Amino acid sequence: MVKPIVAVNYKAYYPYSFGEHALRIARDAVRVWEETGANIILAPPFTELARVLDVVKGSGVEVYAQHADPVEPGARTGFIPLEALKELGVHGVILNHSEHRLKLADINWLIKKAKKLGLKTLVCADVPETGAAVAVLGPDMVAVEPPELIGTGIPVSKAKPEVITNSVELIRKVNKDVVILTGAGISKGEDVYAAVKLGTLGVLIASAIVKAEKPYDVIKDMALNGFKALQS
Amino acid sequence: MVKPIVAVNYKAYYPYSFGEHALRIARDAVRVWEETGANIILAPPFTELARVLDVVKGSGVEVYAQHADPVEPGARTGFIPLEALKELGVHGVILNHSEHRLKLADINWLIKKAKKLGLKTLVCADVPETGAAVAVLGPDMVAVEPPELIGTGIPVSKAKPEVITNSVELIRKVNKDVVILTGAGISKGEDVYAAVKLGTLGVLIASAIVKAEKPYDVIKDMALNGFKALQS
Amino acid sequence: MVKPIVAVNYKAYYPYSFGEHALRIARDAVRVWEETGANIILAPPFTELARVLDVVKGSGVEVYAQHADPVEPGARTGFIPLEALKELGVHGVILNHSEHRLKLADINWLIKKAKKLGLKTLVCADVPETGAAVAVLGPDMVAVEPPELIGTGIPVSKAKPEVITNSVELIRKVNKDVVILTGAGISKGEDVYAAVKLGTLGVLIASAIVKAEKPYDVIKDMALNGFKALQS
Amino acid sequence: MVKPIVAVNYKAYYPYSFGEHALRIARDAVRVWEETGANIILAPPFTELARVLDVVKGSGVEVYAQHADPVEPGARTGFIPLEALKELGVHGVILNHSEHRLKLADINWLIKKAKKLGLKTLVCADVPETGAAVAVLGPDMVAVEPPELIGTGIPVSKAKPEVITNSVELIRKVNKDVVILTGAGISKGEDVYAAVKLGTLGVLIASAIVKAEKPYDVIKDMALNGFKALQS
Repeated sequence: MVKPIVAVNYKAYYPYSFGEHALRIARDAVRVWEETGANIILAPPFTELARVLDVVKGSGVEVYAQHADPVEPGARTGFIPLEALKELGVHGVILNHSEHRLKLADINWLIKKAKKLGLKTLVCADVPETGAAVAVLGPDMVAVEPPELIGTGIPVSKAKPEVITNSVELIRKVNKDVVILTGAGISKGEDVYAAVKLGTLGVLIASAIVKAEKPYDVIKDMALNGFKALQS
Repeated sequence: MVKPIVAVNYKAYYPYSFGEHALRIARDAVRVWEETGANIILAPPFTELARVLDVVKGSGVEVYAQHADPVEPGARTGFIPLEALKELGVHGVILNHSEHRLKLADINWLIKKAKKLGLKTLVCADVPETGAAVAVLGPDMVAVEPPELIGTGIPVSKAKPEVITNSVELIRKVNKDVVILTGAGISKGEDVYAAVKLGTLGVLIASAIVKAEKPYDVIKDMALNGFKALQS
Repeated sequence: MVKPIVAVNYKAYYPYSFGEHALRIARDAVRVWEETGANIILAPPFTELARVLDVVKGSGVEVYAQHADPVEPGARTGFIPLEALKELGVHGVILNHSEHRLKLADINWLIKKAKKLGLKTLVCADVPETGAAVAVLGPDMVAVEPPELIGTGIPVSKAKPEVITNSVELIRKVNKDVVILTGAGISKGEDVYAAVKLGTLGVLIASAIVKAEKPYDVIKDMALNGFKALQS
Repeated sequence: MVKPIVAVNYKAYYPYSFGEHALRIARDAVRVWEETGANIILAPPFTELARVLDVVKGSGVEVYAQHADPVEPGARTGFIPLEALKELGVHGVILNHSEHRLKLADINWLIKKAKKLGLKTLVCADVPETGAAVAVLGPDMVAVEPPELIGTGIPVSKAKPEVITNSVELIRKVNKDVVILTGAGISKGEDVYAAVKLGTLGVLIASAIVKAEKPYDVIKDMALNGFKALQS
């Protein structure tokens, strides 16, 4: 059975993305996974990866890094190569987020290397065309997020549904298999429902969950709406 | 009593800087601290900070991050603001390492903010003059490391002792209090002895400890030689 | 009639790329254009664009910038927006050279904006896959140059002909119209001949022409071999 | 006799900083120089340097680049090393402008290299402390410009005179000879008068001259007020 994806980018909200609240979101995610079976991905800051991994251990919730530096391991003070993530036990990595854009050659290098190391890649893009360009490189997932909507609470699925349909169309022309996600402004279950109905398999969200008073409620609402859209 | 400083930059050596070996270095450092009382600073990768902090808990060994991004917390995917480090409980941060140079305005911003947050700063420089420029900004420690000697095993104290003496001279002209460290090519206790005799208070080392078969032996040798030089 | 392309990246060789020698290459290019009618593109440093434009005036030789910064005009000290190039009268711009890589979103932004301003784009890529990714974005030309061969004098057409054939294959899957160039290690007319026979329309060269004792001879040899390959 | 300095950063305003208007500002500057003898520095975009140099030839007006890349000449597509500027005949270079910040090690490398090549350096800083840090490195001029006032038309000499007096105090502690300039929000002759009275030798201005309807009037007003302040 196909399952919807709810990917949570913790970003670096203070204090929400760190410490006890970072773990609480992880516990809530595990609970929703137990109750719904949705694919939930958590992407905490580098400094919180180890502790979040401890919390989700044994569950189906996956942990991704928010970024990886395009460097080989070695004398690279303050950089995080993919090997550091693999060693830690994370499942994948977000690349090229609009707040952390990468050079094209580096995106390709990181996707290829992550594949070799057994890490999954979720690559972001700002418009349908760059989403298609990225899809040519063979990542596991692509999320097209118009930067002007990120963090606004105005869901791309409502404000610019054509961004989603164009993305699906352009990406499918060059890559039949890559998973497509919707991002930017997603804040409720109904946004997830719309995103899935428009042809994607789930969402990439940040503040709507990370800063929520009850992350559990939001994650669950999104997971259930994702299933509902897939089954209708 | 003045104590010598042995600061260990783990860098991103694979597999040495990560996982079990990262913790082993930390345990060895705690043992040397218990036996000598030297000031030992460990700077593991972001992803290992939480676990290394657990190991040194209750001891006098301090944990620094290798870098901090010059950003406020918030929507900053994949970046690590100082607040993330403070939240974790680290004691300080290395800034402007030759492998991760920062813009001048950002160095100043980070030093000021770290001070406010109660985090110590160890700022690197490539030559005596930039060491003095950095000292003007009021960090806790300055380490002048000629990049061409970093990682060579050729100690700056032997190859270019004038780098150390010039650094001390230029830095003291503009800042009476900042702690001065020696770095680049330091690999044995005798290098630490020489560095302290030339007027600095300790060393910043990487591979000589991180890749050592017995990190304990190297750390201890360095700590003891540091004390010896201070007392002679 | 289809014509071969000889694109000359001056880079920043000293003193070759600057001053009198920069103009001499331009005069030689005009002479070859008069004698053969080949499409010749010259890409001198920003600081030499005005004078090189003066030299080629009235001929069919085109002048490109080596780079453009992904910024709008305005308060941007030391940056060169596309408008600065348009104002000067250049014909196009090289983007994403292996020595000046750009972020994916910026490549797309620059291609779209250049099109609006009537500037042509020659976008570089390091491997066939990134060449295809770039081709999705609709530039005028794509040059796939394996960085490890750039500047070696070992022509990619001999050392790695599969890079060229794979590039042509992958790029044509996503873009029927973009002009494909061969680059890296090209130094003689026979390399141009091979490059065209492998399915591209010309070459991107630097030192072989810029540092040549007689640039005229090399440009002419390349132009003639390009025509020969196209007609055979 | 000591003369005031009026340094004009053209930035990249469109169309003001380019083409005919760029030359008109240069002609106006030459006229003011002829009439007052003030030290006038013009810093047009890289692409306009050659033509502006032609205009000021034979006068005492100096031409600076807005930036130089911290690279040696060679295979550096799209970068401008100091040698490119020297070759062109410019007199100096602005470094570390708030819109184009540099790494500390690179500022030092560029100052040293410019000195060897006979190019003068005007280094910007954001606050008095970084101004002093820069002064340690021995540039010819330092301009402290609070970024929050740049481009506002609110002169730093009125809004934050303590920035100027603190800069002078901190810089003089570490460097007796460096010329100190005032920048940010300077728009009239009276701002220049105030800046000189507060202890600096002139100003760094951009839009107030570059976008002026009659650049001649503004430059002259500033030059005369500079002399007036020096003589009073």
